[in-house]
Amino acid sequence: MKNADNISEFTIYRLSIYKRCLEQLEQEQFKTVSSKDFAARFGLNSAQVRKDLAYFGEFGIRGMGYPISTLKEQILTILGLAESSSGQKTWKAVLIGAGKIGTALLKYQHFAKYGFEIVAAFDADPESSEYARQPQATPVGTVIPLYPLDQLEQSIAEHSADMAILATSEENAQEVVDRVVATGIHGILNFVPVQLIVPSDVKVRTIDIIAELQCLTYHLHREAVAEAEEDRTTLSDTSPK
Amino acid sequence: MKNADNISEFTIYRLSIYKRCLEQLEQEQFKTVSSKDFAARFGLNSAQVRKDLAYFGEFGIRGMGYPISTLKEQILTILGLAESSSGQKTWKAVLIGAGKIGTALLKYQHFAKYGFEIVAAFDADPESSEYARQPQATPVGTVIPLYPLDQLEQSIAEHSADMAILATSEENAQEVVDRVVATGIHGILNFVPVQLIVPSDVKVRTIDIIAELQCLTYHLHREAVAEAEEDRTTLSDTSPK
Repeated sequence: MKNADNISEFTIYRLSIYKRCLEQLEQEQFKTVSSKDFAARFGLNSAQVRKDLAYFGEFGIRGMGYPISTLKEQILTILGLAESSSGQKTWKAVLIGAGKIGTALLKYQHFAKYGFEIVAAFDADPESSEYARQPQATPVGTVIPLYPLDQLEQSIAEHSADMAILATSEENAQEVVDRVVATGIHGILNFVPVQLIVPSDVKVRTIDIIAELQCLTYHLHREAVAEAEEDRTTLSDTSPK
Repeated sequence: MKNADNISEFTIYRLSIYKRCLEQLEQEQFKTVSSKDFAARFGLNSAQVRKDLAYFGEFGIRGMGYPISTLKEQILTILGLAESSSGQKTWKAVLIGAGKIGTALLKYQHFAKYGFEIVAAFDADPESSEYARQPQATPVGTVIPLYPLDQLEQSIAEHSADMAILATSEENAQEVVDRVVATGIHGILNFVPVQLIVPSDVKVRTIDIIAELQCLTYHLHREAVAEAEEDRTTLSDTSPK
């Protein structure tokens, strides 16, 4: 395996996808897979897969492909998800902003299986938050406690939280992020559609639903324009001379 | 403006971000902005901004920067969001899977302001879905109707839906996507953590929360490893000779 420092952000994201695909192949009792079959099976770009997996060069055996479980373990190690002698590392997150999206995340029961735990939630006004209005009885797992925002720093320290999930209003987002960063947290998953300003050693990943939708409208609009052009061409071709 | 066909997916995503930033500057009564100030203000990569805005080359006036409202209109046109003589285009989406994430999206009140409308929702089991368990009275807007999944094709046709938002279980995702694609829909926003197989003229954008979190753990893990290395080096430096 080459130096993990040289891996781009895009490759890291794809490694996470590959990991999931490899797990599926493992469940189906496969032992090895070629990059070509792997790409075809999961609708991935095969040139991209080959290039990404070149980091794990020594494992691709000509005519055999990649040993699935070894490759998966390598990816887990790179992503910081490998089991150590003390068991699987669980990454602890705090969630800030218990509105619609925040509440959906707080009620999601499967973070643990991916190595994550939301240890506490915060809201500027806990009593009137979306989360407070939800039925709290969950069939499995514990209910995540919701605190007023002024307990943020204390609670991050108490829980030794590793990361923060941001789902506040647009107005409060930067101020809250400044407070999160001041506690020493270096990883933020941001659901708020604003540009956050953070120091260079803090990594922010933003999930921007509107921007994603607008990437789709770009394609749909371009298709519609191309079709209209084609219709016009066809019409002029068949016009009487 | 250069040919919009040459714009990469990544640039399109960033254009959507720039659009939001430009709107903010407009609200603050700014008329022009240089790429440098623009990047600094919103924590963007200034070389990247310059490169992206080179598509709009003729508008960058030396010493003046870009005229904000013109640039914003250009981006809106590219993204398929520009107002026509018949007013702003509203893109119609159906949502499939009324679970936790699906319900959060169905209750989100601000799609209209970005030019989107969820016209109908579907679930394999509407009565026992998360959405059915929610209080339906909304302070503003209409309640989006929830139908059984077998009405999907009929409803997409009736509403002339442009796109689909997928929030089903992992097991059902591919089957549902095949049905969506068969109706002629070419744009899908996918929240399900699976690799979907679609024809090449169908654009899928996936929002993968677990993959985003794992991009963060990669960075946090790498930091922790680097710190441990540094501690070891420091210790050996100061060890007695």
